[in-house]
Amino acid sequence: MIGAKTLAEGVTPQSEDYSRWYTDVVQKADLADYTPVRGCMVIKPYGYALWENIHDALDRRFKETGHVNAYFPLFIPMSFLEKEAEHVEGFSPELAVVTVGGGEKLEEPLAVRPTSETIIGHMYAQWIKSYRDLPVLINQWANVVRWELRTRLFLRTTEFLWQEGHTAHATSEEAMEETLRMLGVYVDFAVNEAAIPVIPGRKSDTEKFAGAVNSYTIEAMMGDKRALQSGTSHYMGQNFAKAFDIQYLDQNNQLQHCWTTSWGVSTRMIGAVIMTHGDDKGLVLPPRLAPIQVVIVPISKTDEERAQVMPVAEDILKRLQAAGVRVKLDDRTELTPGWKFNDWEMRGVPLRIEIGPKDVANQSAVLARRDIPGRDGKSFISWAELEVKAPEMLATIQQALYNKALAFREEHTHQPETYEEFKAAVDDGFALAWWCGSAECEDAIKNDTRASNRCIPMDQPGGSGKCIFCGKDASEKAIFGKAY
Amino acid sequence: MIGAKTLAEGVTPQSEDYSRWYTDVVQKADLADYTPVRGCMVIKPYGYALWENIHDALDRRFKETGHVNAYFPLFIPMSFLEKEAEHVEGFSPELAVVTVGGGEKLEEPLAVRPTSETIIGHMYAQWIKSYRDLPVLINQWANVVRWELRTRLFLRTTEFLWQEGHTAHATSEEAMEETLRMLGVYVDFAVNEAAIPVIPGRKSDTEKFAGAVNSYTIEAMMGDKRALQSGTSHYMGQNFAKAFDIQYLDQNNQLQHCWTTSWGVSTRMIGAVIMTHGDDKGLVLPPRLAPIQVVIVPISKTDEERAQVMPVAEDILKRLQAAGVRVKLDDRTELTPGWKFNDWEMRGVPLRIEIGPKDVANQSAVLARRDIPGRDGKSFISWAELEVKAPEMLATIQQALYNKALAFREEHTHQPETYEEFKAAVDDGFALAWWCGSAECEDAIKNDTRASNRCIPMDQPGGSGKCIFCGKDASEKAIFGKAY
Repeated sequence: MIGAKTLAEGVTPQSEDYSRWYTDVVQKADLADYTPVRGCMVIKPYGYALWENIHDALDRRFKETGHVNAYFPLFIPMSFLEKEAEHVEGFSPELAVVTVGGGEKLEEPLAVRPTSETIIGHMYAQWIKSYRDLPVLINQWANVVRWELRTRLFLRTTEFLWQEGHTAHATSEEAMEETLRMLGVYVDFAVNEAAIPVIPGRKSDTEKFAGAVNSYTIEAMMGDKRALQSGTSHYMGQNFAKAFDIQYLDQNNQLQHCWTTSWGVSTRMIGAVIMTHGDDKGLVLPPRLAPIQVVIVPISKTDEERAQVMPVAEDILKRLQAAGVRVKLDDRTELTPGWKFNDWEMRGVPLRIEIGPKDVANQSAVLARRDIPGRDGKSFISWAELEVKAPEMLATIQQALYNKALAFREEHTHQPETYEEFKAAVDDGFALAWWCGSAECEDAIKNDTRASNRCIPMDQPGGSGKCIFCGKDASEKAIFGKAY
Repeated sequence: MIGAKTLAEGVTPQSEDYSRWYTDVVQKADLADYTPVRGCMVIKPYGYALWENIHDALDRRFKETGHVNAYFPLFIPMSFLEKEAEHVEGFSPELAVVTVGGGEKLEEPLAVRPTSETIIGHMYAQWIKSYRDLPVLINQWANVVRWELRTRLFLRTTEFLWQEGHTAHATSEEAMEETLRMLGVYVDFAVNEAAIPVIPGRKSDTEKFAGAVNSYTIEAMMGDKRALQSGTSHYMGQNFAKAFDIQYLDQNNQLQHCWTTSWGVSTRMIGAVIMTHGDDKGLVLPPRLAPIQVVIVPISKTDEERAQVMPVAEDILKRLQAAGVRVKLDDRTELTPGWKFNDWEMRGVPLRIEIGPKDVANQSAVLARRDIPGRDGKSFISWAELEVKAPEMLATIQQALYNKALAFREEHTHQPETYEEFKAAVDDGFALAWWCGSAECEDAIKNDTRASNRCIPMDQPGGSGKCIFCGKDASEKAIFGKAY
């Protein structure tokens, strides 16, 4: 209940200042808070409950695809990071470095992990001996640190929580299969749990992970039409295997280097959920991830009315709990129903059940959808149907959120034919355009428009065309957009 | 499968070298491994699966007692640690300190959290305004770092995983109630999940947490008769509330300091499980925490026999899965049944089901208990009873492990009347003895015998006696023992 009193004050409208709207929602919905530690946030209980649901939904999928969890050290010797040239170049500007331990200056400074390819690569080199040990399919849930100058709650923080999968395989084909399998897991999670339509695609060389051969991404469009990279899956080829001597004896007793992958989703996903579904009343949570799916608000003006209403509210609570719904009864007496409505709308609870004296008389209740404001989102329901209708309604809301976000993205995705059209397109969202594949065009576009190459979508139209910037032959289309 | 080949080699017998036995078990059962990062371990997948079960069993209890999870920063400004005098004195020798971030020297160095009272206290001071905001009941699952000179896998590592609960209350009574409630939760967990008999008690002033008014502990006896502190719950009084200005307006609109608690259990609990139940064949896991509760080993000498046996083994697998048992079918063809038996015994799987051609003919199977070696632990069972009998047997094993550990502790707990008897007692385990309460006696005993004051048990005999060391009046008995 911390901070509850400030909740009903409302947030800055999206149209006025999207960035302030975002920060208002994060704070007023009690998801996270700033701390005196530069760039580090507190994930508050409500935000953490959302992360727990994201964790569980991903973890289940990882285990279903044969992965196991493990835990590797927080600290990485600086010399390890230097073993893969592109990797150290990419990460060294962002490192937090421990130089003192137990009161003494360390001989070799330790980096706080910005990601764990190097320390995990070192361990895999010890563990993997033979083709029988492969594949190694390990995931880690952990905190990582990347020193950031400009931070935003959930989107870019110095410390964040994530999962990082690290796998080793006998062949290039298997490693590539794994890379794309996990990209598919991320798409499945985004679409079916977070109700976020995402575009799976390959990153350009400019945008790929430091040390990868190829990086794959799921890109989503936020409510301000900007892109958010929401998860990545990297095919490392033999880069890390060679840097860390991850080798195995094959069936012919020949020593071979492994082929490795890594893939990650972070607390940034919470930012994606907020900015995909939120509105001027606050957060809107997809039912499958919502810590509270249904809130029951009893309505009474007198003690007598309260005595009628409360037993019914408690009965509904128990029945929905038994039906597996995450439900809360807001029985606070010091607050008005109107205040509570605003409060739970701010927190994005998908479905509200109102119970007043009239409803008791009619053995009915009012269901109010968070995603459809006002009367259109309200319906009456008889008590007898609750266990069936409430979960049905949650499923309807889940699908409606996805549909709405998809329609929004499609409305703001354009296929420009000229560079002039391209510039207008990236001012209004995504441009899907032929691209020759050169970093020069990519850079020039970015300098000119601030739109970056988000990905080369897996789903290509086929055929060929002319690069939207230089006019040279192009065999692939890319998505460009301004990004977080 | 990593490292499987070395598993059947066996471990150093406990009687030969208990310490080596422990390290052998941790490594050969694939629980954890050393890393090149001083004092930091890798928790391998099998060890991590055990930790996940510990996590889930504790987390469920925390939520049932009204707690929520949150996440606070990894880094703590050095000035925060200095705000509570005893706290900084206790922890500063153990700190890892970040002095460089993003390539630049930091103005104020950041400690990697050794525990989070200070940063959480600072946040609570921002969040708590009124008595309506209390109690605050938050837990955090996190990694912490304490620079250790001598480390042992799980028992004492520079980085470890734990949970730390931090609560704030309006009154001293409520805070003390919470402190003891969580001690009770730890007892419940230890006894009913880990099958470890523990002694709940109060720490002496010498042994209490740096900054606490009173610390409570659960103490367990390991297989070498030494004590292991397995969880602690601290009553902070107003020490941290005053250091961090955690204040609230009471019902009379008066500003009051809160009363706070903290409590934690760490990956050290895995060490407790290993050393309470393990034997010369390796790990013995309590069924409720075991990642694999039942392993099915099919036995066949010919392809024809295998064709008979495997469908039955697979059927048993499915039926036990459907009955909610964590079960694995070991269908590896390159290994003998005997090798597999040793392998799964090393890994502590509580129950083995053997299926051979004779069993197929009889529609029966052999159940072999991990905790009872040889024939005495074997029984025949008909297929029809499997879903009932296997879970029953797991419950029996769970209870048997507890009973065995309790009997062992009781056998090695003595109530000496003289100091000579006391010295003999602490050479053989625990001494429960009258103690006058002075740090001088405690220190003298420790210097003389290497046995420390483990706790003043909650369960006291009543009455009074003479201090075992100085002979002065004593009103409480304490447990003394050599400790990890």
